[in-house]
Amino acid sequence: MTTSTPATREQAVEADRLDPLARYRDDFLIDAGGPIYLDGNSLGRQPRAAFAALAALLDEWGRDLVGAWERWVELPAVVGDRVGCLVGAAPGQVVVSDSTTVNLYKLAVAATDAKVDRPVIVGDANDFPTVRYVLQGVAERHGRKLRLVHRGAAAGVDAGAVAEAVGDDVGLVCLSAVNFRSGAVVDMAAVNQVAHQFGALTLWDLSHAAGVVPVELDTGGADLAVGCGYKYLNGGPGAPAWLYVRTALQRALRQPIWGWWGQRDQFEMAAAYEPLPTAGRFLTGTPAVLGIAALDAGIAPLLDAGLPALWEKTRRLVGLLVDRAEKLLIPLGATNASPADPARRGGHVAISHPDAWAATRALIDRHLVVPDFRPPDVIRLAPVAVYTSYAEVWDAVERIAGVLADPAIRLPAPKKRIT
Amino acid sequence: MTTSTPATREQAVEADRLDPLARYRDDFLIDAGGPIYLDGNSLGRQPRAAFAALAALLDEWGRDLVGAWERWVELPAVVGDRVGCLVGAAPGQVVVSDSTTVNLYKLAVAATDAKVDRPVIVGDANDFPTVRYVLQGVAERHGRKLRLVHRGAAAGVDAGAVAEAVGDDVGLVCLSAVNFRSGAVVDMAAVNQVAHQFGALTLWDLSHAAGVVPVELDTGGADLAVGCGYKYLNGGPGAPAWLYVRTALQRALRQPIWGWWGQRDQFEMAAAYEPLPTAGRFLTGTPAVLGIAALDAGIAPLLDAGLPALWEKTRRLVGLLVDRAEKLLIPLGATNASPADPARRGGHVAISHPDAWAATRALIDRHLVVPDFRPPDVIRLAPVAVYTSYAEVWDAVERIAGVLADPAIRLPAPKKRIT
Repeated sequence: MTTSTPATREQAVEADRLDPLARYRDDFLIDAGGPIYLDGNSLGRQPRAAFAALAALLDEWGRDLVGAWERWVELPAVVGDRVGCLVGAAPGQVVVSDSTTVNLYKLAVAATDAKVDRPVIVGDANDFPTVRYVLQGVAERHGRKLRLVHRGAAAGVDAGAVAEAVGDDVGLVCLSAVNFRSGAVVDMAAVNQVAHQFGALTLWDLSHAAGVVPVELDTGGADLAVGCGYKYLNGGPGAPAWLYVRTALQRALRQPIWGWWGQRDQFEMAAAYEPLPTAGRFLTGTPAVLGIAALDAGIAPLLDAGLPALWEKTRRLVGLLVDRAEKLLIPLGATNASPADPARRGGHVAISHPDAWAATRALIDRHLVVPDFRPPDVIRLAPVAVYTSYAEVWDAVERIAGVLADPAIRLPAPKKRIT
Repeated sequence: MTTSTPATREQAVEADRLDPLARYRDDFLIDAGGPIYLDGNSLGRQPRAAFAALAALLDEWGRDLVGAWERWVELPAVVGDRVGCLVGAAPGQVVVSDSTTVNLYKLAVAATDAKVDRPVIVGDANDFPTVRYVLQGVAERHGRKLRLVHRGAAAGVDAGAVAEAVGDDVGLVCLSAVNFRSGAVVDMAAVNQVAHQFGALTLWDLSHAAGVVPVELDTGGADLAVGCGYKYLNGGPGAPAWLYVRTALQRALRQPIWGWWGQRDQFEMAAAYEPLPTAGRFLTGTPAVLGIAALDAGIAPLLDAGLPALWEKTRRLVGLLVDRAEKLLIPLGATNASPADPARRGGHVAISHPDAWAATRALIDRHLVVPDFRPPDVIRLAPVAVYTSYAEVWDAVERIAGVLADPAIRLPAPKKRIT
């Protein structure tokens, strides 16, 4: 099997023929005549198994009613451990819980509380909004100071930038492992090392990393992490999120939302809150059982394929995308807003262009490609190893070039019909 | 139509025949040969429409993918307004969001932040665990003091008890409208009045009240409220919860979890967090779309029946249950642990008995009745207006009496089989 970048459409088709992951495409609902979907890093495609998983869950609810909780009660930890397999976490450290935002909040407060004499949180000025907002809120309410690293999304944060920002006054370094905009990948182990040298904890948002790029939470020395369930994990819209707390830290950290699902001997309903000694103490209220069932169906193909194979194909898809974009889109005024160094690229690519918004609308309205627009000028493109083909990447870039070359997209938008 | 309490099984059957709500029973999945389900206040039965609602949602996800967010983005407010119809809240004040625990936390912190010079939170010593734990956590982390009203679950908190506890040092009064254990109902309007006289805000947990007892958030003067989706609202296991913030308070209050779903012009992804000027500012992360779809199916029969009819039938069912329990269970050593005054009873009844745990296990194991056990000695029974019949209540009490009279239930439990 050749691993070189396809140079013709025929070679792209041949790469699909030889692709060991091609069979997973059938695990997902795909309209053969539909647009090419390159937004799986915003909302993953639907695994065919989601329907059966939800139907089975409804069966349980209908038949066993409240008695089914004997099984459901374990789901946050059971499915958490499965997510853990994708991010290098041994069992007992990941639980499915709440949303990414709420999990970030819980862990950021827990970490800053544990480092009470270190008032500074280091974050990334170009991080995803919810990460920045959560840290702003924690800083403002708890008398902390937020120190933002400014490196530009395309360059991305690296350990050197963190080393410049971190000091004895820093209690927490909170970053995304893959930038939501540029796809720039951070060397997590190097950042963990730098942070630990100064006595700070690390908290990672893996929403754009889990299930795509290699992540080794345990061996890489990460302290805390969170991630969403609806992107590469294919859990569906608003799927529950997950969180990771290293075993050694579980008893030392306390989260701020004291709910009955974090309580030891929960159904004893004791007077005083006494959190579980496990990762379960980071749960809050009743977990979203329907959502967890769909999430479990969403990660099954990833666990089956295995991360090394997923990452190998992702790199080739991204390589092809960048290669074709340089040939077809740069001449049309586009810029590659992702890292120039292939070794720093994650699972998606950012193409900036002055007409990015108009082109995104036209690509969607004409049923050509579903990309993602990120203000002010980025078209974000994510091929996904389990369901995107090399030929789709090839064709998508041609379609994007066709739209960027079409002066009609720059005409004023027609008035919205009131129907 | 007679509204007297049935005195014979024949009269119970006749009451079912005349029951204007009887037709809603067919809207729910019910195994005709199964046990009598009296735990709808822990997990509501499954509406038949839940399957179709989830299938439609999966269709949207499969077909429209990320484009479906144009509709989904409105769901927290749209379904929130529908929940609002059940609790006397005009549109624009209820959003579906997170879990009850997380919503309690957000609103409790928002309220205590707004009353920074009033260090005391008034709560109920007999409230549901998560309410007590959340308040403990808020008190501990934010230097507040928790002042608990002790009245016993059966008596329940009343405005008089609150008046004794409240003073100029109190910023927040947080109570459940219906006690999770005894079913005792609080006069919300009277408590709101007392709290406001002293300048405190009120926060209500309506998990055991919404969809059952009359609740008038707007006209009753409540400030804040939360409730779960999986009990009387029939949203399924771990259904998303909801929260209410009175319009006049929405701009004045800020919640602590600063996420992108609470942000003004969310998709502009601005640098600084600036919350929406609406109830939307109390959202956090991406809402659980699958769960909201199921919740919407769960409340549809309640909205169709209307709360006055639901409450009227609930009172008759509860009256029959208490009447039969007094005749059959009290002689067997049971005590009515719910309010003696019918006017203070909510939608469920607590029967205490030294063998409550053994009886609960026997009732479930023998497929007779599904009640709920609440430590140390309470059998909790909830007939639900949309799917419980008078005959079921009649038969359930007979079955409970049979089990309590059976000495075999007091034998040591057989060893669990390891399968």
